[in-house]
Amino acid sequence: MKNVKPRTLSGFMELLPAPQMQMERIMQTLRETYALYGFYPLDTPLIESSEVLLAKGGGETEKQIYRFMKGDSDLSLRFDLTVPLAKYVAQHYSALTFPFRRYQIGKVYRGERAQRGRFREFYQADIDVIGDGKLDIINEAEVPSIIYKLFTALGLARFQIRINNRKVLSGLFAILGLADKAGEVMRTIDKLEKIGADKVRTVLTGDCGVPSEAADELLTFLTAPGGAAGVLAALERYKGRNETFDQGADELATVARYMQAFGVPASHFVIDLTIARGLDYYTGTVYETTMLDHPEIGSICSGGRYDNLAAYYTDKQLPGVGISIGLTRLFYVLGEQGYLNEQMNKAPADVLILPMTEDIGQAIALATGLRGAGIRTQLYSEQKKFKHKIGYADKLGIPYVVFLGEDEIKEGLLAVKDMRSGEQVKVSFEQAVEQIRSGLAAANAGKVIVDRQ
Amino acid sequence: MKNVKPRTLSGFMELLPAPQMQMERIMQTLRETYALYGFYPLDTPLIESSEVLLAKGGGETEKQIYRFMKGDSDLSLRFDLTVPLAKYVAQHYSALTFPFRRYQIGKVYRGERAQRGRFREFYQADIDVIGDGKLDIINEAEVPSIIYKLFTALGLARFQIRINNRKVLSGLFAILGLADKAGEVMRTIDKLEKIGADKVRTVLTGDCGVPSEAADELLTFLTAPGGAAGVLAALERYKGRNETFDQGADELATVARYMQAFGVPASHFVIDLTIARGLDYYTGTVYETTMLDHPEIGSICSGGRYDNLAAYYTDKQLPGVGISIGLTRLFYVLGEQGYLNEQMNKAPADVLILPMTEDIGQAIALATGLRGAGIRTQLYSEQKKFKHKIGYADKLGIPYVVFLGEDEIKEGLLAVKDMRSGEQVKVSFEQAVEQIRSGLAAANAGKVIVDRQ
Repeated sequence: MKNVKPRTLSGFMELLPAPQMQMERIMQTLRETYALYGFYPLDTPLIESSEVLLAKGGGETEKQIYRFMKGDSDLSLRFDLTVPLAKYVAQHYSALTFPFRRYQIGKVYRGERAQRGRFREFYQADIDVIGDGKLDIINEAEVPSIIYKLFTALGLARFQIRINNRKVLSGLFAILGLADKAGEVMRTIDKLEKIGADKVRTVLTGDCGVPSEAADELLTFLTAPGGAAGVLAALERYKGRNETFDQGADELATVARYMQAFGVPASHFVIDLTIARGLDYYTGTVYETTMLDHPEIGSICSGGRYDNLAAYYTDKQLPGVGISIGLTRLFYVLGEQGYLNEQMNKAPADVLILPMTEDIGQAIALATGLRGAGIRTQLYSEQKKFKHKIGYADKLGIPYVVFLGEDEIKEGLLAVKDMRSGEQVKVSFEQAVEQIRSGLAAANAGKVIVDRQ
Repeated sequence: MKNVKPRTLSGFMELLPAPQMQMERIMQTLRETYALYGFYPLDTPLIESSEVLLAKGGGETEKQIYRFMKGDSDLSLRFDLTVPLAKYVAQHYSALTFPFRRYQIGKVYRGERAQRGRFREFYQADIDVIGDGKLDIINEAEVPSIIYKLFTALGLARFQIRINNRKVLSGLFAILGLADKAGEVMRTIDKLEKIGADKVRTVLTGDCGVPSEAADELLTFLTAPGGAAGVLAALERYKGRNETFDQGADELATVARYMQAFGVPASHFVIDLTIARGLDYYTGTVYETTMLDHPEIGSICSGGRYDNLAAYYTDKQLPGVGISIGLTRLFYVLGEQGYLNEQMNKAPADVLILPMTEDIGQAIALATGLRGAGIRTQLYSEQKKFKHKIGYADKLGIPYVVFLGEDEIKEGLLAVKDMRSGEQVKVSFEQAVEQIRSGLAAANAGKVIVDRQ
């Protein structure tokens, strides 16, 4: 009968049960955190009409799209959650209330060249706040603060949110007479961290044709010392020469101030004037997030302010601010770098009941009782040797085993074994629930990510 | 700029925010219930190699598959969660511990003809218990009891789980000399409820060529009165003539007995000998679930016992028992029939803070405080008229608004407005948290489905 070798496509993540429990824990933390900030959950189709999904057309992504015909319909799988959001808001505009705050955690598809750590199917987790016509700058400070709270709740400690403002860069280029070279210059300074100031200077003055004085001024500016305060002071000194620049500098100062009010400590954010991100889409504040000990991974959470979410679908002006986590890649990286908490309770159940009698009616009643007390319970009902049964609990990492034999049933007690300590006690149902609950509280106290502080 | 009309493909469900909250509540109840019973969550790719996904080949579904080429790869979207499970278990066999209990809630794709209430992209929610070589019959009783707990937790009251055993039917056909007509006869008696005994008899004796005596005996048997006990008694009287029949009758009695032990009341399950379901796949107990007041909808949750999950991928014998909910269709039906609780808190936040001062530092601190207390909080930061702000809370159904003006800040108090009663009080932060929490507990006490008892 067997005729096909079971396999998973390359570039598609399929987790074993234990790591899947870690992934679920992460997703649950995301959902809870986003909900605390008043975001609606949203769910849109994975498939859209190609005409709708690719309305913006062109671009690097188009080649990567999973696009196909079904009957007469030209269909595509979504490649991000932003285009479906734009479609959603434009389509349902009159049924929505603005500012519209939504999160979405969903799979997206890109036919990238398969290589280690690159995925063709991957989760993105996005939050966006969309205004109708206008959107206050406060949102540009609150959104990264949610990311701070989220990563902290997950257990990540050594990360930094890097912010910039597109208007600062545009204004600066105008001041230095580089407006016509903006794109090229942007891409070059984006490499500052990677290749260093000297090489960037060489490329700027060489390939980009930037006058050497302008290159110097630009580099001095971009590498202003003194942390966020130092950069803001440098921006302040530069004001009065270009309106866009001044506006950007003010916005950056406002966002930085409010981020602190929203609880992001100075240690966890920097102003980084080299961050550009998708020139044509973002118009104000932009974000990247880096792991301090793994800058080579690049940004694990990025986004920014945009002025026109859905220009291809509607004439309404829909400004917004959003930020996105590439969850599958992040999970992969955390695993590779040893950040995932292996001590976490990854068992599918907290208790395994081993009935030691022929009639398992009492064991079933016990299972019902424990589940009623909110304890995840499995009843082991297979006809196997004792060693096999206890080995089942052991392999799955189930923290408690409850034996129910003739004696226990007669006495109205339970034999509870703590699988980690090996200790076994005979207690009442109520005592068992209490013991298991307090044990679980300790076992589940750890976060899903373990980072040095 | 606007050039494409935003639209969602026909047959694809895209919910507005408020109903999406109801859907999320349902999914959360599913996750919590399945977790209580010790099931692992699982997540498999939506896309598989066509060779793997269609290993079984043929069948009605094949025409409906979303199948396409990407580069040189022949790919298909999954059309159920069972084939991916079979692949998963076969592929990861040596890394799994059996019995393997997993749930999966995920989208599947079938290119059905578009019509009201039919979906091409829809959620299935499956639970399965897979054994290695053997699997005890207890599982066949526990699985439908989980469904009973689940629907009850969701608020559904008037439903019935119908069980049967394939061996009873096979044995019966053998006894009546109808073994060679089994498929045809099965399809006919499956219509018993729809077209009635007389018409079924006509088709049996006519089209199917069943001798009239056999047809009578079959119909008498299938319509045995007296509920589960009556049917079991009728089966008992029939025993001793066919081994398969006897085994099926014993299994049915065992499953019925244990279902009661697992807490399914007699009112909520029946033995229905007309249920057949996928002849070639199921081998023992089979389930269907019907809404008592809407039999026309058909089964809202179906499944059964199978002996060989992954024969196309492995020589291992992997028996299992599983049950599946067509979640998108169920949600649609519940909405259409007025079962969804419109009183449910569908707001994205529990509290909206309206800062009444220029500097919103205090309002931000308050938002942080409320979120820290686990209260879903939005800070309204747009520059709008008061009426517009309060209208925002009203439109979203946010139950509490907290005003923070100069006076309140000076006094260290909050003005809390209960949006349902219209009452407004000035209280301390601690009092506000308490008031909001107890109000929410009452508001969230209702279930997502409202059914008459």
